[in-house]
Amino acid sequence: MIDVERKRRVVEAMKQLPLDAFICGSASEILLITGYWPVIGPSVAIFTVEGDIHLVLPEDEVELARASSEASLAPYKPSELSTIIKPIEALSCPLRRVTARLALFKASIGMQIHQGMQPASYASNSVFRSCLVDLVQSLLPQAKVVASDDVMEEMKSRKTPAELDQIRKATEIAKAGFEIAGDAVREGRREAEVAAEVQAAFQCSLKGSKVQRSYGYFFCMSGPNSARASAAYARTRQRKIEQNDLVMIHANTCADGYWTDITRTYTAGAPDERQKAMRTAVAEARNAALDVVRPGVAARDVDCAARNVMAAHGFGDAFRHSTGHGVGFAAANGNALPRIHPQSPDVLDVGMTFNIEPAAYFDGYGGMRHCDVVAVTVDGVNVLTEF
Amino acid sequence: MIDVERKRRVVEAMKQLPLDAFICGSASEILLITGYWPVIGPSVAIFTVEGDIHLVLPEDEVELARASSEASLAPYKPSELSTIIKPIEALSCPLRRVTARLALFKASIGMQIHQGMQPASYASNSVFRSCLVDLVQSLLPQAKVVASDDVMEEMKSRKTPAELDQIRKATEIAKAGFEIAGDAVREGRREAEVAAEVQAAFQCSLKGSKVQRSYGYFFCMSGPNSARASAAYARTRQRKIEQNDLVMIHANTCADGYWTDITRTYTAGAPDERQKAMRTAVAEARNAALDVVRPGVAARDVDCAARNVMAAHGFGDAFRHSTGHGVGFAAANGNALPRIHPQSPDVLDVGMTFNIEPAAYFDGYGGMRHCDVVAVTVDGVNVLTEF
Repeated sequence: MIDVERKRRVVEAMKQLPLDAFICGSASEILLITGYWPVIGPSVAIFTVEGDIHLVLPEDEVELARASSEASLAPYKPSELSTIIKPIEALSCPLRRVTARLALFKASIGMQIHQGMQPASYASNSVFRSCLVDLVQSLLPQAKVVASDDVMEEMKSRKTPAELDQIRKATEIAKAGFEIAGDAVREGRREAEVAAEVQAAFQCSLKGSKVQRSYGYFFCMSGPNSARASAAYARTRQRKIEQNDLVMIHANTCADGYWTDITRTYTAGAPDERQKAMRTAVAEARNAALDVVRPGVAARDVDCAARNVMAAHGFGDAFRHSTGHGVGFAAANGNALPRIHPQSPDVLDVGMTFNIEPAAYFDGYGGMRHCDVVAVTVDGVNVLTEF
Repeated sequence: MIDVERKRRVVEAMKQLPLDAFICGSASEILLITGYWPVIGPSVAIFTVEGDIHLVLPEDEVELARASSEASLAPYKPSELSTIIKPIEALSCPLRRVTARLALFKASIGMQIHQGMQPASYASNSVFRSCLVDLVQSLLPQAKVVASDDVMEEMKSRKTPAELDQIRKATEIAKAGFEIAGDAVREGRREAEVAAEVQAAFQCSLKGSKVQRSYGYFFCMSGPNSARASAAYARTRQRKIEQNDLVMIHANTCADGYWTDITRTYTAGAPDERQKAMRTAVAEARNAALDVVRPGVAARDVDCAARNVMAAHGFGDAFRHSTGHGVGFAAANGNALPRIHPQSPDVLDVGMTFNIEPAAYFDGYGGMRHCDVVAVTVDGVNVLTEF
């Protein structure tokens, strides 16, 4: 692991619980504790309180792991011509060796047990379901498996400077899509056409990128469809953009496992009074939220700041969702910390990254949302999506 | 469920085991048994041996579910402004009601327990890890949870005519990318540039598509990088294509949850003798494999047919991986049935879809692969990627 600060924090978290080790099979958390973002095959990370870091991984992912992690690598063959073997069988041998070498026989081992979100690391991802916990318990029958989902979420919420740099890269590559979005949105064009053009601009901008694995998901939602964008997901349809429509472009972009969540809203043609009022309210709500952000502030106060402005403009009911949620290790996860939500118990801290997405949605008419990714600095906030 | 044949097969599989119900939280298997491909939030499908089908799902996915499934829908609110609730808590109430109504108290319930692959249904996907099994066991303490991973894999391997139509759509949308690939591959261009152009052509072709949710992952690997394409995953890099390079374009495309796995290899400039020999061998191996495919044939005989041709051309050692694997519900999963592998115990059956991907890889030089998606018909084979 090149990120000394992250290593320190993981060890610190284990000491506080206390735990002897984390054993982890989910890609985002493997990225967190090892620096490596698994591609497709099942990988398992082992991180001990002494700071030993091991990765059991398919041999064809070794090159990428070596380039991004200082973990000791224990590769396995994910497939062979001489035999058919299930991945869990193939990885159990090296996992047994690693856990034996680390003497984890009677250890307290933190593992993820609960439901969570996993960003797409490839067209297809490995999921362990129940079997990684079962395997660890069978390899180490005297060890105690402790649910560590919450501490993983906590750790993911506060980014180290190195992780912030990665998230910045993910926001920078998104820019190319949004730079042309305003021109792409025109009356008579289909949402799918606009989304394709924006996506294509994004793809083409990657040609000189230093990022190893970049993904971008761009969506276009127009008119009444933009009102549906209050859902947890975006969806591009075949609708033709009409004059005076509100048109939302939403994107999740990714640089080597670090993600963004960005939305801009345009008007097809000149905005009318209603749209101007929505835009003004959303812009003011955004600024009000930004003004509040600094370490020590309750996350709900950030939500409140945005919500009060929307209400003052008469858009209280139209602002249907929370003001934001953690972004970085997750692309789209309303439960990622900090939750910028009216009932949030979370407190802002340096290095936290989240979105601020004030919005107004009117069924059958349209929606206006402006979604930025921001980072909490020592004395305020840094907007990572100033475009 | 609109697919009567699929419903019949699921009921039949349950009767044979026997099981009283499947309870399923993985997107591809929910698609299989309900017709609905969950987007982002945690969904749970319940399918009883009586043929009752229920879906517990986030309310913002109801519209899509209703359009594709005849399951009874039990929606839950994935988030609210008045309270912060974890998805597993939000869905446990409707899941309790459904399992109570179906009187599953003492049922034998098939669930997925083991490691598997999950194609990307959005920028981010829900994973249950261990907690869905735990939840079902806590809701139904007297029920018996039975690992049903294998029967799910079996069911996914044989597509119904309706599912085949969907896979055909996924192959059709891929065509637009490959149509321009030959021209896009030129000396002096970066792999990332070629991949972007092909991806953009794919995206733009979707503008009139009837598919609700289409994804495509296009990759370009040139020269020595194309030799690395024997890995379980593809990766586009910044390398500039050089004269006489072998250049591979690989894609996984998706239409509403049904996936493809397609590769074509080009030459930058005129192919030399070595490349011509590789192309001839791969083409002959492909044809030899296709000639063997029909119901009742051992999958390993298909592998053998391709492998013998490669060996006869002197490319035996260069053909490093199996000839294919199941494709359709999975994008890239070497363990999907049928495994077209030298040691495969699988037997071909009508409706099975898989890839045939004979290849030759030479480290430091390059790789040649031709990967088609095919379907087993009553008396032979149908190539779904004739482009």
